[in-house]
Amino acid sequence: MEKFELHILGCGSALPTTRHFATSQVVNLREKLFMIDCGEGAQMQLRKSRLKFSRLNHIFISHLHGDHCFGLLGLISTFGLLGRTADLHIHSPRGLEELFAPMLDFFCKKLTYQVFFHEFETHEPVLIYEDRSATVTTIPLRHRIPCCGFLFEEKPRPNHIIREMIDFYQVPVYELNRIKNGADYVTPEGEIVANSRLTRPASPVRKYAYCSDTCYREEIIEQIKGVDLLFHEATFAQNEAARAKETFHSTAAQAAEIARAAEVKQLVIGHFSARYENEQILLEEASGIFPVTVLAKENLCISVGNNE
Amino acid sequence: MEKFELHILGCGSALPTTRHFATSQVVNLREKLFMIDCGEGAQMQLRKSRLKFSRLNHIFISHLHGDHCFGLLGLISTFGLLGRTADLHIHSPRGLEELFAPMLDFFCKKLTYQVFFHEFETHEPVLIYEDRSATVTTIPLRHRIPCCGFLFEEKPRPNHIIREMIDFYQVPVYELNRIKNGADYVTPEGEIVANSRLTRPASPVRKYAYCSDTCYREEIIEQIKGVDLLFHEATFAQNEAARAKETFHSTAAQAAEIARAAEVKQLVIGHFSARYENEQILLEEASGIFPVTVLAKENLCISVGNNE
Repeated sequence: MEKFELHILGCGSALPTTRHFATSQVVNLREKLFMIDCGEGAQMQLRKSRLKFSRLNHIFISHLHGDHCFGLLGLISTFGLLGRTADLHIHSPRGLEELFAPMLDFFCKKLTYQVFFHEFETHEPVLIYEDRSATVTTIPLRHRIPCCGFLFEEKPRPNHIIREMIDFYQVPVYELNRIKNGADYVTPEGEIVANSRLTRPASPVRKYAYCSDTCYREEIIEQIKGVDLLFHEATFAQNEAARAKETFHSTAAQAAEIARAAEVKQLVIGHFSARYENEQILLEEASGIFPVTVLAKENLCISVGNNE
Repeated sequence: MEKFELHILGCGSALPTTRHFATSQVVNLREKLFMIDCGEGAQMQLRKSRLKFSRLNHIFISHLHGDHCFGLLGLISTFGLLGRTADLHIHSPRGLEELFAPMLDFFCKKLTYQVFFHEFETHEPVLIYEDRSATVTTIPLRHRIPCCGFLFEEKPRPNHIIREMIDFYQVPVYELNRIKNGADYVTPEGEIVANSRLTRPASPVRKYAYCSDTCYREEIIEQIKGVDLLFHEATFAQNEAARAKETFHSTAAQAAEIARAAEVKQLVIGHFSARYENEQILLEEASGIFPVTVLAKENLCISVGNNE
């Protein structure tokens, strides 16, 4: 099956530590790369990941806090030095272009490619990217400023033809597309051959949901129902629940509650507060509620769904 | 003797690699920290260095290229999160404030401290910092845009009193400051005691010169004459001399020529082009001309002059 992977470039929160970079990750969906958030150092981490810069054409920024976008200038500038020619699209809540355009005009005067800003509202889901095989939709979150997550979904694929049955019924080639899309076959003699005899269902679509930064927010459960992989912020442990509420962040337990209620297949938690020298406490709190939880860490790569 | 050290935070050039961060360094002069340039990742490297953030009150930016200043936003933002209260002074060629102020206004709204920008012209040396024991003066350089280096100099210190001689001549306390500053002593009997009998000379002042980015420029030799430590950019090896000229950078050999002509005591080269997987070639070319040369590298700490 084609690749669908999540690469963690950075999973710290606002205060960088010697252990974590600011937030950034890359989704590899069938060899197209999509960056989510771009904290300081993202370009260094991207280089370390050995992912191909040239396959990255879209960057999605969740919200306009520095630890989620300060790496943009360096990244854009470096792409220019590397002689990139393909357009680069940056998707974000309103306001990013106004802030960054003057910096780009000054520091990246002779870019060999174009940067396009696409801005969206964050109060309801918006389809912000679509190609032949996938879509990206925003997930409204609740933070101190407008913020949203991102839902990456494969498009349903046509059924697989069972070659032996096609041969057996001598189905003409021009019928094949209809059959892949679910139609039955009618023989020249008028016999109806049910689609289920001619095809096997395609593999189920795979989904990845990114939810950061946000306070505990049950409203997202419906939208992320059953995703193969959920990244949910878990800035704090339970004993800092009041602090989490006050700063519109989540605890590890809250991330796990969301994962359980949404019946996701796997949870990865991140955006760790700098106060945790070791995030084991966060993992324990989350795993107690939702066992299939892993800690994000720099340079971690996780498959989304069944990649075999 | 009091500390005078150079800490390399990053010594790559515009294109970051897995080996080098963008340019940034910190001078520790008697436990006051001064940052020179602030490329992306400088705050992470500063944290790794274990230098105390609170001792850093002045940042000197050599020129307005992204690899020398993109780290400012993250650094300023982090200082705010850490609850800093002391003013932060940023010294740079003209234009930095206009570019960065709107970003700071937006991303660092509730700073607990003030940021002051101080801008200077780069065509002649300007005294841009002075305290009781040291000065910082700009060194006009030649690059594609206005650019200057920085000369850190200790102030001459008063001579050391020779306690035994003071006692012998029963010199009154109120005469001591004059004597430290070089005056002879006249006894009540009218006998003149030469200053050289009463004092030993203070240790010679120590000097550090930072010269990056620049093409080969003999005009700087006079100003950096005899410094204890010279950091000079060495972006390219000799076989890229044409490229160096074209981009207003220096070769390792040119850096060494400057060091030799200026009779500096030690040379450290940096700002390496990403094309060198290994900078040994640069070290060899420089050492052939000026033997006391070292390669900059991340987390290197070098004494300026005799720190014993």
